[in-house]
Amino acid sequence: MKTITSRDNAFYKELKQLATSSQARRKAGQSLLDGVHLCQAWLDLKGAPDHCLVSEDALSNPEVRAIVRRCEELHTHVTAFPEALFGAISQVEHGVNIAFLAQTPRPQQPEAITESAVLLDGVQDPGNVGSILRSAGAAGIRQVYCGPGTAFCWSPKVLRAAMGAHFVLDIFENADLPALVRAARVPVLATSGYAAEQLYELDLSAPVAWVLGHEGQGVSQELLDLATHRVAVPHAGQVESLNVAACAAVCFFEQLRQSRR
Amino acid sequence: MKTITSRDNAFYKELKQLATSSQARRKAGQSLLDGVHLCQAWLDLKGAPDHCLVSEDALSNPEVRAIVRRCEELHTHVTAFPEALFGAISQVEHGVNIAFLAQTPRPQQPEAITESAVLLDGVQDPGNVGSILRSAGAAGIRQVYCGPGTAFCWSPKVLRAAMGAHFVLDIFENADLPALVRAARVPVLATSGYAAEQLYELDLSAPVAWVLGHEGQGVSQELLDLATHRVAVPHAGQVESLNVAACAAVCFFEQLRQSRR
Repeated sequence: MKTITSRDNAFYKELKQLATSSQARRKAGQSLLDGVHLCQAWLDLKGAPDHCLVSEDALSNPEVRAIVRRCEELHTHVTAFPEALFGAISQVEHGVNIAFLAQTPRPQQPEAITESAVLLDGVQDPGNVGSILRSAGAAGIRQVYCGPGTAFCWSPKVLRAAMGAHFVLDIFENADLPALVRAARVPVLATSGYAAEQLYELDLSAPVAWVLGHEGQGVSQELLDLATHRVAVPHAGQVESLNVAACAAVCFFEQLRQSRR
Repeated sequence: MKTITSRDNAFYKELKQLATSSQARRKAGQSLLDGVHLCQAWLDLKGAPDHCLVSEDALSNPEVRAIVRRCEELHTHVTAFPEALFGAISQVEHGVNIAFLAQTPRPQQPEAITESAVLLDGVQDPGNVGSILRSAGAAGIRQVYCGPGTAFCWSPKVLRAAMGAHFVLDIFENADLPALVRAARVPVLATSGYAAEQLYELDLSAPVAWVLGHEGQGVSQELLDLATHRVAVPHAGQVESLNVAACAAVCFFEQLRQSRR
C-alpha cells in the first residue's frame, strides 16, 4: 500500500478531477465507486478495480480492511490518503472513506431488443434513475437503454441510489430510443397516466420492454405512438400519478409475479 | 391584493422564518406549499389556504392568475412580492413563484388501526417519504403513521415529492408504532428482505397495515417481532434489496390488484 500526502501529487490531482467532473470521468472511461457497499459489490460481481483508495483512518474499519485485503490478493494498487485529502475525492458525507476507481463498463449494444429491458426517456433525477436500476436488477431485468436527457448513470448519485445494481445490468447510454422501439422484437410498453390499457390486464409472462419518461412530462409523444402498448397503473384514490421510480417498481414486479406463475 | 416591498416588513420576516425553520413551522402549526401544483391541489382538496403568496413576475402566468382568482373568491389574502424578496420564502428553484401558507392538518389519531395504513419506522430520506405518501394516496390508502426518526412529512422536500398526496391522507407524526401494532385490528405486515413469507403468497384482499423501515437498517427488530407477518418482495436477480419507496409501491399496488379482483 502506498500513501499519498501531498495535494500536488499528480495522481491525487487526477482523482480530484474525476471526482468533480462527469466529463472527466466520461473521457477517462472510469467511474468512482464510493463507500463500502459499492466496493464490495464490484469485487463480488466484476472482480478487480483499477485502484483502491482509502483514507488512513478508514483502515481501522474491519470491512475496509477486508476490502483492501481482497484488492491486494487481486494485485490491485491500494493507496491511502490522510482524511483531509480523501474528502475531495469522495462525495459521501459521513461515510466510510473507501472508494474504487474502476473502468466504466461499455457493453456492446445489441442490434435489437430481444429480451426484457428498460428504456429511460429523459428521466432526470439521479435518485429516480438509481432506484429504477436497482428495481430492474432485483426483478431480473438485465438491459437498460438511456435516451438523451436521462441522468448519467455512472454519476456518484445514481451509483449510490442503485446500490450496486449497475454491476448486474448492461447499461447503454445515449441510445436512440425511437430506433430501438421500431426494431424491438419484444412488445414495448410505454407507461402513461393517461393510457386506457391497465397494467393488470396485460399478459406479462413473456419478455417486454418498458419505457419510462420524464418526471413532469412523461414519455414523449413519439415513443408513446411507436410503443406496442400504452399502459397505466390503475389508481384507487384522488392522487392521480406515481413517482416514476415507484411506477417502474410496480411494473417490473407485476412482470416478475406473472412470469413466476 | 397587497404588495410588500420591504425586507423589514413584519409579515415578510415571519414568512422567511417559516421558510427556513421546520421548528418555526411546527410551532406555528403552518406549512408552506410551494409551486403551482401543490397550491392547485390544496384548493381542490382542502379549500382556502391562510394566505396566498406570489412574486410580481409570476402574475403574468395564467395558472398563477387562476389560483389568485380562486383565492380571492375564497376571501383569502393574496400578497405580492418583488422577485428578490420572494426568493427567500420559496425553496423551489426555477419554479413558478407562488406559494400558500396553510394550516398543517392535525387529524385526531384513532385509538386503533382499523383500516389499511402505512407505518413509517425511521424512513429518513424526504424523497422516499414523499414517494411513499404519493404511492399510498394513489393506491387508496388513507392513513400514515410516522414513528420518531422518520422525516417530517410537512417539510418542503417531502411536500414536493408527494405532489399533493398529503391532502388526501391523514398523517400522524410522532406515533408510538409498537403500541399501534399491538392494538391493530387489521393484520400488520412488516417488510424485510430477510423474511420467509413472500408478498405474492399473501391474501391482501382485506385491509392491512404495512410497516416500512429505515433505508439501511430496515424495520426495527421490535416491530418485526410484533408484526403479524414479515414479508419479502421476491427477487429474480443478484440485486438483493429494493429502495424502500420502490418496495412500498410494489406492496401497495399488489394490495390494490388483489382487492380489485
